[in-house]
Amino acid sequence: MSEAKDNNGRGSWLTFRPEIKVLDCTIRDGGLMNDHRFTDELVRKVYRTCVAAGVDYMELGYKNSKDQFPKADFGPWKHCDEEDMRRIVGDNDTDLKLSAIADAEKSDYKTDILPKDQSVLDLIRVATYIHQVPVALDMIQDAHEKGYETTVNIMAVSTVHENDLQEALELLAASPVDTIYLVDSFGSFYTEEVKELTKRYLKACKATGKQVGIHTHNNQQLAYANTIEAVVNGANQLDATMAGLGRGAGNCPLELLIGFLKNPKYRLRPILECVENDIEPLRGSMHWGFDLTYMLTGLLNQHPRAAMSHLGKDEKDRDSIVKFYDEVMDV
Amino acid sequence: MSEAKDNNGRGSWLTFRPEIKVLDCTIRDGGLMNDHRFTDELVRKVYRTCVAAGVDYMELGYKNSKDQFPKADFGPWKHCDEEDMRRIVGDNDTDLKLSAIADAEKSDYKTDILPKDQSVLDLIRVATYIHQVPVALDMIQDAHEKGYETTVNIMAVSTVHENDLQEALELLAASPVDTIYLVDSFGSFYTEEVKELTKRYLKACKATGKQVGIHTHNNQQLAYANTIEAVVNGANQLDATMAGLGRGAGNCPLELLIGFLKNPKYRLRPILECVENDIEPLRGSMHWGFDLTYMLTGLLNQHPRAAMSHLGKDEKDRDSIVKFYDEVMDV
Repeated sequence: MSEAKDNNGRGSWLTFRPEIKVLDCTIRDGGLMNDHRFTDELVRKVYRTCVAAGVDYMELGYKNSKDQFPKADFGPWKHCDEEDMRRIVGDNDTDLKLSAIADAEKSDYKTDILPKDQSVLDLIRVATYIHQVPVALDMIQDAHEKGYETTVNIMAVSTVHENDLQEALELLAASPVDTIYLVDSFGSFYTEEVKELTKRYLKACKATGKQVGIHTHNNQQLAYANTIEAVVNGANQLDATMAGLGRGAGNCPLELLIGFLKNPKYRLRPILECVENDIEPLRGSMHWGFDLTYMLTGLLNQHPRAAMSHLGKDEKDRDSIVKFYDEVMDV
Repeated sequence: MSEAKDNNGRGSWLTFRPEIKVLDCTIRDGGLMNDHRFTDELVRKVYRTCVAAGVDYMELGYKNSKDQFPKADFGPWKHCDEEDMRRIVGDNDTDLKLSAIADAEKSDYKTDILPKDQSVLDLIRVATYIHQVPVALDMIQDAHEKGYETTVNIMAVSTVHENDLQEALELLAASPVDTIYLVDSFGSFYTEEVKELTKRYLKACKATGKQVGIHTHNNQQLAYANTIEAVVNGANQLDATMAGLGRGAGNCPLELLIGFLKNPKYRLRPILECVENDIEPLRGSMHWGFDLTYMLTGLLNQHPRAAMSHLGKDEKDRDSIVKFYDEVMDV
């Protein structure tokens, strides 16, 4: 399997693309399963692990609106206030860059995102549905002018018409954004589709020197496979989470991805330690990961909310998977 | 994602290749985790589910030597005696074909495999390491002459030199075997390698009209991804197990594969029912499925026995994953 190609265009085992960057979003995507209520100790463990593992970016959480999401109802990683971040990372005197993500139409970005010289954040990521692209463009412009690196994550792209996607890619390619992410929100893409879409995103990005990123979900046990498929086809910014911790079926596991990548700056051992000692023990209270219900919503290219609601019930009140199947198939 | 291609060579969503056959090996591969001691009730449930789901073949177990593997030490599916099989399937008056697998140098095949007209079995599969190919060829000839369909599964091919593999493929292509299986015994193949190998197996099979099969393990969470990669590249005989039940990290989950395949003869609902009611409850006593230890042996292209031994210990006696990592990395 090849990150890089040799002179004959063949995959090479012992080379790597130095452009590849890994972004750990354990706390950010995992926060969707516990209203962002992680202990400071846990967040610090993940932070220190990312530093030790040579990961390029760590995403701490959201920069979303305190009006829409009151502080009393959520843990600190829904808003990523400067004081909360600094309690964990100090001035972040490390090579690890820090990021937060802001949802289009859910973020008071103009006020809540500080100028970069007043923040420990390095990267602002903008999450947008296709119809919100005009808002996203303003958010990108705002963060860019404040001095941040920026990415844009076009969500639920498996439900978007080809022409609309093409137009969105063209608009975003003309913006100052550094990276455009291919996002498999519903975990519904097969590997072949990831290949085609990665090529399409790359084509849109090429003229303006932008990178393509990949963010996957594991509804059909393809999160890792789809991530490395994107790598092989040229994606250079890769999202992953420890033990796959993330919404619903979870994300591409960081430990698998680091095992795959050849750049010697990455180290697997600290990640294994954190997964075993700090992340896996959360499974008792946070139920993420592959499940037949997620497989079914993924197969149907649906938001996982029906599956999450099914799994949120006490086991004794939960319908059988066959009943769930009959319900979701009755579309 | 495409099983078939349209006239322009593009993947098509609404067509399928009727040549594709699915083989359920839940009881056979799963038997490696419990010395083949399943209750008759469980085997009957899996059998009835395969019939209801339109699966093409069900593998009941091994045809291995009673001298080497005494009956007292194993459940009935180590030997697949005719009376044991008939207790479950009667005369198997269904469209489901039945198979058993025999290991080269571990099977008294000349005596233990009956002529086909005296057996409920339809298919004899021969499992061989590369150095046993001469034995495998004799086993294939024997089963073929007795009236069976035959396949050959070349195991541990990730450790085989290219030239040796080529020679083995040429020898097997000249035999009466119907299908040659690409087998990822150690769960170490990446998707790109499966693509290349599938093409290579197909090339060897083409002249003699044989099919290529695929049998994967989930050490790196790629069992399903690698199976559909083989399908897209032309493999037509596909092994899978319910809930991925199988040795170590387990196999390609049948429910995912059936969700992917478009042939209307396949039905997902009965499989979901069996997985939920009959297979998942076995997890308490049989510990199969992805684990970081299997990821490490897969990454290192090693037999999973070190991981199985690690996981076989009581939790309190088990070393940390970091200690396991240090040990397996010290090669």
